[in-house]
Amino acid sequence: MYCYCRYLRAFGVFAISNFVLAMMAVSITSYISPAAAGSGIPEVRAYLNGVDAPEIFSPSTLFVKIVGCIAAVSSSLHVGKAGPMVHIGACIAALFGQGKLHKYRLTSKWLKYLNNDRDRRDLVTCGAGAGVAAAFRSPVGGVLFALESLSSWWRSSLLWRSFFTTAIVAIVLRALIDVCISGKCGLFGKGGLIMFNVTSTTITYHLVDLPLVILLGVIGGILGSLYNFLMEKILQTYNYIYEKGIGYKLLLAATISIFTSFLLFWLPWFASCRPCPDETNGSCPTIGKSGKFTNFHCPPHYYNDLASLFFNTNDNTIRNLYSSDTNDVFDQLSILLSFVTSYFLGIVSYGVVAPAGLFVPIILTGAIYGRCVGMLMGSKSSLDHGLYAVLGSASFLGGTMRMTVSVCVIILELTNNLLLLPLVMLVLLISKTVADSFNGNIYDLVLKLKGLPYLEGHAEPYMRQLTVSNVVMGPLRLFNGVEKVGNIVHVLKTTGHHGFPVIDEPLNSGAPVLFGLVLRSHLLVLLKKRDFLESHNPMSFHALKEYSFDDFAKKSWGKSERVEDVELSLEEMEMYIDLHPITNTSPFTVVETMSLAKALILFREVGLRHLLVVPKSSGRSPVVGILTRHDFMPEHIFGLHPFLTKGRWKKLQFDRSPLIKYFRDILLGTGFTSRNSFRSEF
Amino acid sequence: MYCYCRYLRAFGVFAISNFVLAMMAVSITSYISPAAAGSGIPEVRAYLNGVDAPEIFSPSTLFVKIVGCIAAVSSSLHVGKAGPMVHIGACIAALFGQGKLHKYRLTSKWLKYLNNDRDRRDLVTCGAGAGVAAAFRSPVGGVLFALESLSSWWRSSLLWRSFFTTAIVAIVLRALIDVCISGKCGLFGKGGLIMFNVTSTTITYHLVDLPLVILLGVIGGILGSLYNFLMEKILQTYNYIYEKGIGYKLLLAATISIFTSFLLFWLPWFASCRPCPDETNGSCPTIGKSGKFTNFHCPPHYYNDLASLFFNTNDNTIRNLYSSDTNDVFDQLSILLSFVTSYFLGIVSYGVVAPAGLFVPIILTGAIYGRCVGMLMGSKSSLDHGLYAVLGSASFLGGTMRMTVSVCVIILELTNNLLLLPLVMLVLLISKTVADSFNGNIYDLVLKLKGLPYLEGHAEPYMRQLTVSNVVMGPLRLFNGVEKVGNIVHVLKTTGHHGFPVIDEPLNSGAPVLFGLVLRSHLLVLLKKRDFLESHNPMSFHALKEYSFDDFAKKSWGKSERVEDVELSLEEMEMYIDLHPITNTSPFTVVETMSLAKALILFREVGLRHLLVVPKSSGRSPVVGILTRHDFMPEHIFGLHPFLTKGRWKKLQFDRSPLIKYFRDILLGTGFTSRNSFRSEF
Repeated sequence: MYCYCRYLRAFGVFAISNFVLAMMAVSITSYISPAAAGSGIPEVRAYLNGVDAPEIFSPSTLFVKIVGCIAAVSSSLHVGKAGPMVHIGACIAALFGQGKLHKYRLTSKWLKYLNNDRDRRDLVTCGAGAGVAAAFRSPVGGVLFALESLSSWWRSSLLWRSFFTTAIVAIVLRALIDVCISGKCGLFGKGGLIMFNVTSTTITYHLVDLPLVILLGVIGGILGSLYNFLMEKILQTYNYIYEKGIGYKLLLAATISIFTSFLLFWLPWFASCRPCPDETNGSCPTIGKSGKFTNFHCPPHYYNDLASLFFNTNDNTIRNLYSSDTNDVFDQLSILLSFVTSYFLGIVSYGVVAPAGLFVPIILTGAIYGRCVGMLMGSKSSLDHGLYAVLGSASFLGGTMRMTVSVCVIILELTNNLLLLPLVMLVLLISKTVADSFNGNIYDLVLKLKGLPYLEGHAEPYMRQLTVSNVVMGPLRLFNGVEKVGNIVHVLKTTGHHGFPVIDEPLNSGAPVLFGLVLRSHLLVLLKKRDFLESHNPMSFHALKEYSFDDFAKKSWGKSERVEDVELSLEEMEMYIDLHPITNTSPFTVVETMSLAKALILFREVGLRHLLVVPKSSGRSPVVGILTRHDFMPEHIFGLHPFLTKGRWKKLQFDRSPLIKYFRDILLGTGFTSRNSFRSEF
Repeated sequence: MYCYCRYLRAFGVFAISNFVLAMMAVSITSYISPAAAGSGIPEVRAYLNGVDAPEIFSPSTLFVKIVGCIAAVSSSLHVGKAGPMVHIGACIAALFGQGKLHKYRLTSKWLKYLNNDRDRRDLVTCGAGAGVAAAFRSPVGGVLFALESLSSWWRSSLLWRSFFTTAIVAIVLRALIDVCISGKCGLFGKGGLIMFNVTSTTITYHLVDLPLVILLGVIGGILGSLYNFLMEKILQTYNYIYEKGIGYKLLLAATISIFTSFLLFWLPWFASCRPCPDETNGSCPTIGKSGKFTNFHCPPHYYNDLASLFFNTNDNTIRNLYSSDTNDVFDQLSILLSFVTSYFLGIVSYGVVAPAGLFVPIILTGAIYGRCVGMLMGSKSSLDHGLYAVLGSASFLGGTMRMTVSVCVIILELTNNLLLLPLVMLVLLISKTVADSFNGNIYDLVLKLKGLPYLEGHAEPYMRQLTVSNVVMGPLRLFNGVEKVGNIVHVLKTTGHHGFPVIDEPLNSGAPVLFGLVLRSHLLVLLKKRDFLESHNPMSFHALKEYSFDDFAKKSWGKSERVEDVELSLEEMEMYIDLHPITNTSPFTVVETMSLAKALILFREVGLRHLLVVPKSSGRSPVVGILTRHDFMPEHIFGLHPFLTKGRWKKLQFDRSPLIKYFRDILLGTGFTSRNSFRSEF
């Protein structure tokens, strides 16, 4: 009866289907939209911080993200669906925010009011929150995730809007589950609105269990930061490989897929067959459906516990691990083997060029880790192993993602057991604190690897020793209020700047005055309209009425105008253009002697793209320079001032901490709120 | 047997004990700390917005708040404990933040690092969150309440800190409940960590129930805004009465107390006695303890349902209303009577000069309202009346408090039933939307009545038509870098300003230059130290080292230095003082032509107290004026520009909305994030 060919054939089917699905995910990502690779959460975070990475919200990215995510998750790769769902939600929101989908004839009149950055960012935040809410069926968790991990600015009306979005998600989910309750929709709706309902028994715990929970948190924190460290190294290696070409991307994915199939299929052979428990009448072993007791290669009435963990959907595996009164279902060796597998597969799989989330692998690995600890404790602890699994997930999430409130609420909404709250909170806090002392959170690492200029909300100590004039550099390009077309075209072609100061020569006296700031995109609109003047005389201000709202609306993503597209005759180049109507006459300014730290606070809090630097004393040009996001990046500052090593200033900070701390507060906020570390731990 | 004297005697005991407790609460509040009256949430909100109301966090306020709240709640007044608990939490945090309690010899070295505004505000936020967490045993709800309703600025590290605080609250509560489980602690710990556990049965609802839930939300919103409207009128009347003296405060409280006792005792006589249901073996009627079936004046085996609602702790009443499978326990008339009583008693009781919360009365009234609707529906709906009560609470909270996420999470944590989430969310959103179209939330109304200058985060439309030079007024007082002591004392005595620009006359050229901003409190420190110069020569900058961190630390609440306390000889008055070491050399500045709306954004986002206005053209004084919080208040602006009526600008805004909306966005945020309504709906 024991013909090994049968098993080999089974392995073949398993491995080949996995391989085909994985290759499909990787190839559509590589060829159609490389921006869809990875979880997408770092990109959404960067976008909400003000970084418009190209193509991250394009329709092709959305398509690849949806199809690729389904393929990647189905291919047994150890990747999750939550991150891609956040990105999908953000994408859909962003496409709404474009206001017009000319290609698809879906132009709506009221949608065009969304053609500005603020409303788009609000929409994207809501969409991303909806993604989390849908992924975990966790509406409050979705709002908190958007607040804690995604957005860089927050206002109360946004809280209310994102809450509205996730409420709709919850209601639609509930309605769909109502429709699907008869089993027409496959696995969907099986768990009800609560995915991992572990309330079947009343879970009890007491004060004496606290040390154990603390230990769980500490180890979880260490494991989590190690996970981040290894992840960073692996991703760096992958990036190096990927630079060599698309072929290498496919090759690496193929290797990982085959390796994964191999592990998942052959590892369960190491686990021994276990007899079915008596009380399960008929449902053990579970054949032809997913359940706790997978038969695999075992004789009838026996099951293979490792196979039950591997040959299951991730959701089902987590549910099995979370369920209570199952202390004897899993063997110690199986749990240990599956922990090691899950931990390392999670690290190597994320870097694949396909839509791949981190959340589910981390929850799963954490749950197995929790069970591990529970088994090692044996009879020394009275806690249920299902509870250990929940706490293990929490500690591992805290150790890698470093989120607190949102993870806590998501776990609560996943498990529907509020009595766990104190323990989950405790374990999260401990694991986060432990892990924070080693390295940063996983999204920051990915963000840094991608090279996105994320602007932190707090000023570094060395910034307090610099003034803005220390970092402003490069030749400044100014325009006059009425400027020659040729000059404008020349400046636009020779620089990459997005904003230019406009100065006016007053009629009576000599010194020029700063009139305002004009944006490259608005200049291009004027150039395209060929709205030129024959002479140097400025138009009257009512000329503004010639322009309509639509002309200046922000264009869709990835469709920025280029100056090369504007073709002007030599005659037109000699004409003049009146910049007054399109100039922002109230740009934010700082004096050149302003401390860099305070300028950063202004820049970040008010959410600027350009900050004009004006001279302290009169008699010079009315503008000294323009600060942009890049001027605040540590790389830029250290490049200009190499003597500022981080270590030195850190040391100094500790030495003189009380006085510095106080005077920093005075200097930074006129004594009231010097929020120099505002939103610092995103 | 039916001797009415017995009932009269019972009424006497009831009314007198209520009266004594109420009078005690009111008199300690009136005589010791009037700042402790009311819920305290508006004051905490204002403090976190930057308004330091006197005495709100003093030890006497804390004492009165604790004792008074216990007395007021015990006196059967229809007031809650949640608001005072928020204030108590904030008070305790603020006392920690003082860094030293010299009086009580509790000076700790590390506590003095908290002597600045930012850390104090963080502490107070955490303390207030802990108060909510303790009041409702709702840790996540506490964090969200602090975020949504209290704080004006938020950063991620504060989220994490307040979460830590509430986690500790949850763990301590859990431990105390563990200790008290044997019944040693009275009523405490009876309900476990979950106060109103309604998970005893699985609550079911379907799509067909949605219209009913929507209706519940709409009516709840109308009732809620009516509640706010009536509350405002009543509070205005009370304020008018209270101005006449403390005697009137006591008289009013006495009237309300007697009226309340009268209603509570005699109203149940209108309710008929109901026979005990069969299945309750022995626990009906409940005599000598609180329960669902109060005997009152009924014969044995009968109970009075109205009395069970009135003669109970608020918590117990809410639990009774929330519990499922009790559709037949309450009579229609009783519920209607208790709704009217609870609604109007809640309105008249809040204004009493005693620590009094709004949360619990509103939850209770809402629960009764929900039951009302459930009864009116009768057999037309299959929803459980307990569920109606929960939804009624949610809709009424949404209609009065206008909070969404925090109320939703608090209700979830109160009832431990995540399956309710979609319905609770829906009902909250609807009732908030309906109520928002009538008036503002209840805390805003109280804030306005108290006259606290709360700075909204969004700019009003008319502000876009003004420049800062339109609102800056009054004679500006400047100091020279080295200033005569006499001048400083004179200016400090004759003005109430807290910040003064410092200007320097450069040695070479003529035009004076702005050096920075000096604070009144720092000037007073220098005057007290008598650190004077004989001549006009400035000290060298290292003189800063003579001052220690402690000298400039912000003093405890209510202990601001006064210039009258500094006694100087005539000789000293003729000496000079070097202001350079204590001047903030990088104050935030705006040009006089800056739009007022943008200046408000800068002021509010960065959290300033003073904003210097500099001239556009050179050759004049280097400072035009100082903007403070009061310059942005609508009263001030309308006083200066009476032609700016709100209505007119509102109309204008609608007329030209698309273009204005877009150009507002360009003008306000350089195109990137024009967050002019940042945190607008607090």
